[in-house]
Amino acid sequence: MGKQDLFITMALASWESNIKRTNAVFDSFTDEELQQPVAPGKNRIIYLLGHLAAEHDMLLPLLGLGEQQYAYLNGPFISSPDGTVKDLPSAKELRAAWTTANETLRKHFNALSTEEWFMKHTRVSEEDFAKEPHRNRLNVLLSRTNHVSYHLGQLILVKPGSKD
Amino acid sequence: MGKQDLFITMALASWESNIKRTNAVFDSFTDEELQQPVAPGKNRIIYLLGHLAAEHDMLLPLLGLGEQQYAYLNGPFISSPDGTVKDLPSAKELRAAWTTANETLRKHFNALSTEEWFMKHTRVSEEDFAKEPHRNRLNVLLSRTNHVSYHLGQLILVKPGSKD
Repeated sequence: MGKQDLFITMALASWESNIKRTNAVFDSFTDEELQQPVAPGKNRIIYLLGHLAAEHDMLLPLLGLGEQQYAYLNGPFISSPDGTVKDLPSAKELRAAWTTANETLRKHFNALSTEEWFMKHTRVSEEDFAKEPHRNRLNVLLSRTNHVSYHLGQLILVKPGSKD
Repeated sequence: MGKQDLFITMALASWESNIKRTNAVFDSFTDEELQQPVAPGKNRIIYLLGHLAAEHDMLLPLLGLGEQQYAYLNGPFISSPDGTVKDLPSAKELRAAWTTANETLRKHFNALSTEEWFMKHTRVSEEDFAKEPHRNRLNVLLSRTNHVSYHLGQLILVKPGSKD
């Protein structure tokens, strides 16, 4: 394995490890407990579940891998802050969207070659990408791994028995 | 720029971007405000400041780049949970340790060659590293970037005017 492949293996392992930890936290809550905010006046757990499901689902078009499967989540969980949308999808539906979005990504990610990881994502023009070659799919993966870790740090605050 | 160099640039940019955001959050608090917990009963901001300073300072020996500069922070901020150590260093001292630790790392990071980033870190044996070549310095950088992002997600909860 060359160093390029190794780096992609490392980036994917970091992504998967954060997904796994976040799954464990979501799974530790009952549907009713998902209504708790992560801190007083802050986002509810169910909002973060929908938010992460929507953000991960959006990676499909962002990375040029396909259409979103749950585009209807963008409105309530990306464009709107928590508490402003009256009827949110059920916990069951959001848990399924989060799981399916990650499974779909996993299938695509495992099929991408090193060359394909270094290709541009769809929000950068060919012209800008020529000047800024770091704006590639792999960079999106690194950035979204940090994003899930950021919210994991919040979710852990309401997990029973956890202090950090 | 080759792909190997490019992904090191990307990983370093991701690290620096998280450090910058975290600095901005710490700087937004007065010394008195650092005494607030990130959520009721959870770590105080000052504890996370000391924790991140100690963790980043520990990267020096972990990455084989030198001795720790602030090893006395390990006891109160890594081995001990918040609230169990009576006399913590002052806010001023912790802010300086956090800034200096990051500056020292930056100097070392910018001097490492691509080959050096793919060398083993000091907590893995030569034997294990031969079988697990991902246990290199670069992997530690990715993992510590997620770590700072995790705590940034918590700090943002107490930043005035922030909801996520």
